[in-house]
Amino acid sequence: MKFLRGILPLILFILVSVGMAKEHPCTFIMHQEAVQIKQNLNQLPLLKQSFEQTKKMVDQALQKPIDVPPPGEAGGYEHERHKQNYREMRAAGLLYQITGDEKYAQFIKKMLLKYADLYPTLGPHPLAHNQAPGRLFHQSLNETVWLVYTSQAYDCIYDWLQPEDRQLFETNIFRPMARWLSDEHPHEFNRIHNHGTWSVTAVGMLGLVLDDEEMVQKALYGTEKDGKGGFLKQLDLLFSPNGYYMEGPYYIRYALRPFFLFAEALERNRPDLKIFAYRDSILKKAYYSAIQTTFPDGVFPPINDASRTMNVQAPGVVIANDIAYYRYGKDPALLGVKKLQGKVILNICGLELARAYGDGQKVEIPRWKSIEFSDGYDGKQGGLGILRTGSVNDQTMLLMKYGVHGKGHGHFDKLHFIFYNQGRSVVPDYGFARWINMEPKFGGRYLPENNTYAKQTVAHNTVVVDQVSQNRANRKEADKVFAKRHFFDASNPQIQVMSAISDNHYPGVHMQRTMFLIDDPQIEYPFVVDLYRLRSKVKHTYDYVLHFDGQFVTSNWKLTAHDSVQFPLGVDFGYQHLWNQAEAQGNDPFQFTWVSGQRYYSFSTSSQPDAKVYFVRIGAHDPNFNLMAEPGMILRVQRDDCLFASVIEPHGYFNEAQEKSFNARPAFKEVKIIGHNDEGSVIEVSRKDGLRWQIMVNNGPASETQEHQLTFDNQTFRWKGNYKVVKLKK
Amino acid sequence: MKFLRGILPLILFILVSVGMAKEHPCTFIMHQEAVQIKQNLNQLPLLKQSFEQTKKMVDQALQKPIDVPPPGEAGGYEHERHKQNYREMRAAGLLYQITGDEKYAQFIKKMLLKYADLYPTLGPHPLAHNQAPGRLFHQSLNETVWLVYTSQAYDCIYDWLQPEDRQLFETNIFRPMARWLSDEHPHEFNRIHNHGTWSVTAVGMLGLVLDDEEMVQKALYGTEKDGKGGFLKQLDLLFSPNGYYMEGPYYIRYALRPFFLFAEALERNRPDLKIFAYRDSILKKAYYSAIQTTFPDGVFPPINDASRTMNVQAPGVVIANDIAYYRYGKDPALLGVKKLQGKVILNICGLELARAYGDGQKVEIPRWKSIEFSDGYDGKQGGLGILRTGSVNDQTMLLMKYGVHGKGHGHFDKLHFIFYNQGRSVVPDYGFARWINMEPKFGGRYLPENNTYAKQTVAHNTVVVDQVSQNRANRKEADKVFAKRHFFDASNPQIQVMSAISDNHYPGVHMQRTMFLIDDPQIEYPFVVDLYRLRSKVKHTYDYVLHFDGQFVTSNWKLTAHDSVQFPLGVDFGYQHLWNQAEAQGNDPFQFTWVSGQRYYSFSTSSQPDAKVYFVRIGAHDPNFNLMAEPGMILRVQRDDCLFASVIEPHGYFNEAQEKSFNARPAFKEVKIIGHNDEGSVIEVSRKDGLRWQIMVNNGPASETQEHQLTFDNQTFRWKGNYKVVKLKK
Repeated sequence: MKFLRGILPLILFILVSVGMAKEHPCTFIMHQEAVQIKQNLNQLPLLKQSFEQTKKMVDQALQKPIDVPPPGEAGGYEHERHKQNYREMRAAGLLYQITGDEKYAQFIKKMLLKYADLYPTLGPHPLAHNQAPGRLFHQSLNETVWLVYTSQAYDCIYDWLQPEDRQLFETNIFRPMARWLSDEHPHEFNRIHNHGTWSVTAVGMLGLVLDDEEMVQKALYGTEKDGKGGFLKQLDLLFSPNGYYMEGPYYIRYALRPFFLFAEALERNRPDLKIFAYRDSILKKAYYSAIQTTFPDGVFPPINDASRTMNVQAPGVVIANDIAYYRYGKDPALLGVKKLQGKVILNICGLELARAYGDGQKVEIPRWKSIEFSDGYDGKQGGLGILRTGSVNDQTMLLMKYGVHGKGHGHFDKLHFIFYNQGRSVVPDYGFARWINMEPKFGGRYLPENNTYAKQTVAHNTVVVDQVSQNRANRKEADKVFAKRHFFDASNPQIQVMSAISDNHYPGVHMQRTMFLIDDPQIEYPFVVDLYRLRSKVKHTYDYVLHFDGQFVTSNWKLTAHDSVQFPLGVDFGYQHLWNQAEAQGNDPFQFTWVSGQRYYSFSTSSQPDAKVYFVRIGAHDPNFNLMAEPGMILRVQRDDCLFASVIEPHGYFNEAQEKSFNARPAFKEVKIIGHNDEGSVIEVSRKDGLRWQIMVNNGPASETQEHQLTFDNQTFRWKGNYKVVKLKK
Repeated sequence: MKFLRGILPLILFILVSVGMAKEHPCTFIMHQEAVQIKQNLNQLPLLKQSFEQTKKMVDQALQKPIDVPPPGEAGGYEHERHKQNYREMRAAGLLYQITGDEKYAQFIKKMLLKYADLYPTLGPHPLAHNQAPGRLFHQSLNETVWLVYTSQAYDCIYDWLQPEDRQLFETNIFRPMARWLSDEHPHEFNRIHNHGTWSVTAVGMLGLVLDDEEMVQKALYGTEKDGKGGFLKQLDLLFSPNGYYMEGPYYIRYALRPFFLFAEALERNRPDLKIFAYRDSILKKAYYSAIQTTFPDGVFPPINDASRTMNVQAPGVVIANDIAYYRYGKDPALLGVKKLQGKVILNICGLELARAYGDGQKVEIPRWKSIEFSDGYDGKQGGLGILRTGSVNDQTMLLMKYGVHGKGHGHFDKLHFIFYNQGRSVVPDYGFARWINMEPKFGGRYLPENNTYAKQTVAHNTVVVDQVSQNRANRKEADKVFAKRHFFDASNPQIQVMSAISDNHYPGVHMQRTMFLIDDPQIEYPFVVDLYRLRSKVKHTYDYVLHFDGQFVTSNWKLTAHDSVQFPLGVDFGYQHLWNQAEAQGNDPFQFTWVSGQRYYSFSTSSQPDAKVYFVRIGAHDPNFNLMAEPGMILRVQRDDCLFASVIEPHGYFNEAQEKSFNARPAFKEVKIIGHNDEGSVIEVSRKDGLRWQIMVNNGPASETQEHQLTFDNQTFRWKGNYKVVKLKK
């Protein structure tokens, strides 16, 4: 003991020396950048504004007592307090670097002292609910974010702290937390999933700050350092070759934060890794693919588990945008994204972007082009197609999903589409069943209805076979298969088309969906032509599902309303959540109209013998009102082979305040199937004003050069390639 | 014949001379004003903008062929065409006067020539549906608007036209139309109702243009010229002494147009009438009362038959605002209303307002004060109370309705309230059941569900007795009675209160509702305290109804959901339209929380033995989806005497995009009834943070000076006047 006490100063000296050997901060900002930011603040409005926002948040925090409460439930006060604490610490770290004002460093130190008291007393959080537990938080995911942020804060005041403080924090908080996240939970750490990304980033960034090579190696290559897990493997497997993220846009905006923060830290500390060039610049592609899926207002389409409002202002998107701008060649389109974000990050990346942005008056919000993303790490597992037309202010967007399932957050929704027009999803995706962070709603976690409704096939705009979800809603089965790209052509802005195939989601049922977005100069709004073809050896029930935003207006089929007693439409696979509100049958081809915002929308479909229509509303078997009571339409046929050929058209104008209404009836008169077989489908769509189009689609193997010749009813149709659209004379 | 042909020129000469004796235009604008407008256009941005808007509309019309189609159905093309035609003719008339460009006069003449062909061929419109028929339109109401507008157009080109044109138009259109509206439909013409106002205005303005004293006299005094009908009688009977319009804000915005247009025309042609001073300047009061009911964004509260979006941009409000500004002393508050309207009328009134408005940078949107309006022509038939607190940008508004029924457009809704917060009605009024001008929805007319649901008591936030609407939903019975003002005090901005009584809406049931809006500096948002007291000799079912905007979050009573089969809550009086979605009972005093926009709202009520709660959704017995599927809560007790004492509070914050949620649970803990009798009610409301208030209310005759002393449970409460609110120490 006496001996130990004697050499303690020496041991400390060695530890400190090792620590001091490295310049700090080193992960997000370096001292020289902080100086530059300070010098440029008053010249660069966006930088100034971002700095002031940060300063305001922290200065408010400085006025209040620091609170480091014991762990609480998800969404509750304690949970939110710990989240706010890490935000404030990171921000205070940056402010300390930029301003040099020690009060910011003191704030972090005081808070860390409290964590140094608390953390060693904590075991696994008792309210984990099937998730990997944290100790501060109910799930380890939140704990990783805490560590990612706090590592940066610590990095910023590392040199300012006394060695004994550092030892205390590292011993009581940082090293045990890193162990907890890696060695004690290797499954979560090595998982190829956004949780894994956060875990390796947390441990890896801490490793860079502490200059602990062991931590960094585990972060890069997995707990076993064998490359089966870790950051690089995640970059290999979570993205398709063109950058599409397998969990979809809502989760990439969440994963962008660790991906870009760790990459930036690696670039600064392990430049030899050339992380930004890794896998043919996969991070660049990842970021661009994320923003290229957005609606024109910057909101991510809510495919898979997702909220309907998540947008490019999310912190990860702000971080990724600025880093991508600085590291990948200063693309002016990213200045346009900034217009929707309104703030930059406080390092060299944000500084350089703010310099180019100026006062923003010359910056335009980017108008993304139609694009197709391949899915799967190899790019051979289907994809996501997005067709766009119109200006940023009145853009129409048609999105079809035909990729992989997407693991735990995936939905059973292949060949599902979203139709966006007039600044809203008029044929929407429900998104997730979750009231995020709303404590009385199961702590803001995913609700039971997320599994029983939101993930199910009937919650999407696709066809349900036999009232059973794709892959019987078995996630493991669904993860083994994927839909297939058929063809995609957006080269003609007036006629854009995408087509995809699903063979593996319903046994024995081949499905092909081909969607056109036609923007004809003779008509007011673009319209959608949808050819959904199913083929089977045996008869099935095919439910063509369309969810619509707004209010039912009219239908040409007489409704039989279930308006004095109401039952769910089915018993399982999401149908148990749909009230059967009305049924309809009719002789003429079916049409119905709804109103959303200030436009009318009509669905017109081809004649289908014995077809039946159901109008439904979400809300059955929802004892806690967890779901939103939205309307939908289901067109049901019993058939072996079947083609649903339909038009969806915006039309007219409704303004309640001005009491104006024009063209409330559909402009399309008929959708006629001329014929379809395994080679092709031929339909004709016609409007009341006499405009008509003949549309031919290739149902065989995709080819841009193959000649097709089909004869139906003694009429012969010829075309070359995957499709042909002929506008006929009146 | 030969003789007649000989003197025809003479007759024409006499006719023309009589016509020419009067200067034209004379009703809305005079030539000299037009000159002034032209001179000032470039100096006054608002005037310029208004002129350009008008010019754009007419110039577009000039590019297209003139269409005067045969009459069609309500909301259909023909109907809308005739409406657009009168708008274009009036606008063209003003443009002719201002610019002197004859193309505008030609346009009107050409269009009138077509009407001169069509009109004589028409009989009563076949699709009147229980309304007084027009000939061009299904209801005469539209025809009166046509004539009001076209008279002004004709006035503007009167001098430019040839005498034979004038004779043709007057013979074929104007005089027969005026006869149709007055002598052939005297009931509609003499009716004390907005339809009557439009009729007399149409005939009266035409009379002024034609200098036809007979027409003018009928317009002023009724078809019999005995003063039992006509414009002056309408001014006498349709408004309370402080200007509140008996049909409510939605209809006054429609009636403002004829009231102010005809008054302006009379002021110019019959200045001796002193119409603007009539009945102690009742038109001024009428306009101010209308705008003082609006929500802060300029939307009229949708009480009675009304849309939820009608706002101060409506043409009648623009017209009334500018005329009231010019004729009643240039009140700067009316410049503020202009900020919400964005355009002025094109005559001296608009010119002078535009001059004061300048570029609008110094103009502020008015922040209306709390106010009470009396109702009934004598001001003794109850009233409407509006309490407001907060700035224009985050104003809270509490409105209670306790006046007359309001005739055909009235709802059975006495003691009903609306609570507005965060820029929306979080406890809303349903408004009307009508998709206005939406042709497939019954021609845009009132729908059957307007009677069966929207007018019924249960569609409102009040108490329904025995599941029957007030006055058994008999309009004639309801028009005979009214609620009574009790007291209203907005003198203390922190504690505002209004109280009203209904004795005549349910036989043998006395009802008193007292509502406080309390804005305490110690808490974040203002809250409502609601004391609804009922007294009867026999037991009744009392249903306390609360409609809420948004999504149910949680309740402290366990819900029993009817989620596998759903029935309507009742069979009549609107209950047949409410799905009974869930029921709840519990021992603790009931609380429930919903989320709307970015705030939470909680309803907390006193303990009620054997109370039961129903959560409902609109939509049962609605076979055509005419209604909007909104949620509501009904608290039911069986009782003779009863006090519902409740708090409604905004709290916390929810931002889905930012994934933030704070304070999702109610801050109030309990509402406790200490006692209530015919002299007074005493309650205590307390929050979880320890803040408490004792609230005493006078239930006897209103008096600001009377001393009260009540003893409940050995505790004595003393106060003077109508109420007392005591904030207790923690």
